[in-house]
Amino acid sequence: MFKVNENFLKLPEAYLFSEIARRIGAYTEANPGADIIRLGIGDVTSPLCPAVIDALHKAVDEEASGSTFHGYGPEQGYGFLTSLIAEHDYRRRGIAMDEDEIFVSDGAKSDTGNIGDILSAAGSVALTDPVYPVYHDTNVMAGRRIQTLPCTEANGFVPELPSARPDIVYLCYPNNPTGTVLTRPQLKMWVDYCRREGTLLLFDAAYEAYVTDPDVPRSVYEIEGARETAIEFRSYSKTAGFTGIRLGYTVVPKELCGADGNGGRVALNPLWRRRHPTKINGATFLIQRAAPAHYTPEGAAQSGEIIKGYLGNAALIREGLGRAGYKCWGGTDSPYVWVKTPDGLSSWEFFNLLLTQCQVAGTPGCGFGPSGEGYLRLTAFNTPVQTRRAIERIARLF
Amino acid sequence: MFKVNENFLKLPEAYLFSEIARRIGAYTEANPGADIIRLGIGDVTSPLCPAVIDALHKAVDEEASGSTFHGYGPEQGYGFLTSLIAEHDYRRRGIAMDEDEIFVSDGAKSDTGNIGDILSAAGSVALTDPVYPVYHDTNVMAGRRIQTLPCTEANGFVPELPSARPDIVYLCYPNNPTGTVLTRPQLKMWVDYCRREGTLLLFDAAYEAYVTDPDVPRSVYEIEGARETAIEFRSYSKTAGFTGIRLGYTVVPKELCGADGNGGRVALNPLWRRRHPTKINGATFLIQRAAPAHYTPEGAAQSGEIIKGYLGNAALIREGLGRAGYKCWGGTDSPYVWVKTPDGLSSWEFFNLLLTQCQVAGTPGCGFGPSGEGYLRLTAFNTPVQTRRAIERIARLF
Repeated sequence: MFKVNENFLKLPEAYLFSEIARRIGAYTEANPGADIIRLGIGDVTSPLCPAVIDALHKAVDEEASGSTFHGYGPEQGYGFLTSLIAEHDYRRRGIAMDEDEIFVSDGAKSDTGNIGDILSAAGSVALTDPVYPVYHDTNVMAGRRIQTLPCTEANGFVPELPSARPDIVYLCYPNNPTGTVLTRPQLKMWVDYCRREGTLLLFDAAYEAYVTDPDVPRSVYEIEGARETAIEFRSYSKTAGFTGIRLGYTVVPKELCGADGNGGRVALNPLWRRRHPTKINGATFLIQRAAPAHYTPEGAAQSGEIIKGYLGNAALIREGLGRAGYKCWGGTDSPYVWVKTPDGLSSWEFFNLLLTQCQVAGTPGCGFGPSGEGYLRLTAFNTPVQTRRAIERIARLF
Repeated sequence: MFKVNENFLKLPEAYLFSEIARRIGAYTEANPGADIIRLGIGDVTSPLCPAVIDALHKAVDEEASGSTFHGYGPEQGYGFLTSLIAEHDYRRRGIAMDEDEIFVSDGAKSDTGNIGDILSAAGSVALTDPVYPVYHDTNVMAGRRIQTLPCTEANGFVPELPSARPDIVYLCYPNNPTGTVLTRPQLKMWVDYCRREGTLLLFDAAYEAYVTDPDVPRSVYEIEGARETAIEFRSYSKTAGFTGIRLGYTVVPKELCGADGNGGRVALNPLWRRRHPTKINGATFLIQRAAPAHYTPEGAAQSGEIIKGYLGNAALIREGLGRAGYKCWGGTDSPYVWVKTPDGLSSWEFFNLLLTQCQVAGTPGCGFGPSGEGYLRLTAFNTPVQTRRAIERIARLF
């Protein structure tokens, strides 16, 4: 009998969001008409901006005519998009970038998992705790050894350097789930460490559009030497509301090398380039046509307004809960607010309390790892009106 | 220094289509204005049908309003689509199918490679020769041992059962690149073999819409017992012209089990279900909204006409070359025609001859594996006018 990948049997059940949905479902069944406000899931709620909608309609019309129809495209992304990314997201911010270092995909989730394909499965991985579960689960699937870097109130949710050298480290800043950021010196410490130790830094910048503080880097490549040690993941999900239509990209600088079994240097850019035509057929043409609208003055202004709205919600949460006596982190350069549970309640106890007493749904911090116990994540992805109502309810709780 | 996946260093250069493009480029540069007819690449040329275009515009409008906006969807596909697939593609053809056995993705290429994630990398794989390179390359990346099953004129391009039992076998019928098919008894022989030997059958049915012969199965599940041994891959690329907008699905029946290290049975359906939310975030909402149009009477009629057109082209190629004295296979239930090179020419020699003497671009058979040497693949994905002109030119060659 053929054998399965037994690493899958070591995975935790993907229970977090289904368990949340189950508890909310049970509550609404017992309390029909309950006016539940959802600040739990990390999904945008604003519709796509008009510039993107226009671009999508035009792209659909292109697919309706034989003379403008696009079938298979370049697997690594159309040049009309990679050139805009290199120019707007990097060069205009003073970061050198070639178009052929940019690989367009259907999103950062896919890429943060798939990147493991080009890396040895025998390597070790360091992950923050709490962490976005995708980094953890995809590396369990691949069979890599995992060490965790606790992020706690004591270290300000900024991980300390590992005691044992890992082959790979994932960092996500602005962070999901804590909403905290790294300053330039803090990120530099990590880049320097990775260069020194021959560790690959996988930097998830999915939330960079939320950074307003000039001392907080939006790209790992703002740090000198990062091109030799880091891959960066970007997403249009939280930047332009593309969660449902899917688009992201990954940057693999040409300088970046790993080792083969004999210690010879192997550049990663050609490996990732080789993977694309073999394992994906490129991101949907329509969505690649939509992304450039995000780089026009109108599109940039429109998505900027949406992000400003979400950041306003984050401020409502952070400040409202702060006034009510809660300890909170994040929410200034991030859509996430990390709330310490009151009175030593567990994450699930606080979740239940908010659900049943305030009809507000959050996400229990323990779902992101053991160090998330005693915390709850609230997200800014609702409307200002609903966010304000939710915070008023929570503020009246005690 | 962190290590790369050394299996990538064993991959053949992905040279085939780039080498073809290079040779065509060199020829057109030396012969400006050359009227080259492309029968090489397996990409559709007809635009999307009106029913699909309408559905896409409507879906774009849904994304423009907060009340109808769709963000993250179910990672395994929306129920509005999986229910249609189960009903139209299976139950109406007399095949039992539950919706939760269907997993929507961005295409069959991704899935035929990614399926390896849930299987032991220590297993062995049997592949036909010639073969769609994706099966080969993704299994090299994973480090699996590969045995080849030669498909030749002598066996009618239907592989014989392996001499040594493989853990996994890939079959693609109607076949890419040979255009040949399996009859029901031939496919039954494989299903019976796989059940008996505990081999997983990965059946790529990307070209099922081209089957017109009632004795040729369109789904592996037409064969009794296939649910216990086979996974099926389907694509909207060649069925509805979705090559550029990307959509496919994979069927993993609930009965289908592999073994863990102790010989215990492990169902594959939950493993693949667990992979989706971890490694993909679902296929683009817009495209999932477009696919149902393909199942309406209008949409089905419109895509049916397009396929009829391509099959007409295939007949032009097959019959035209046959009259000119060429030996051809395929092209009756497939968009591909497999042409034996004349006078013992190699694949590349015949390719060059067609390019320089007829200004027709094909694909050298040797690019699909050693048994493809001495053959050339022509595709039906051009217009009838251009296809006819190309064949007239080739017929005049000798």
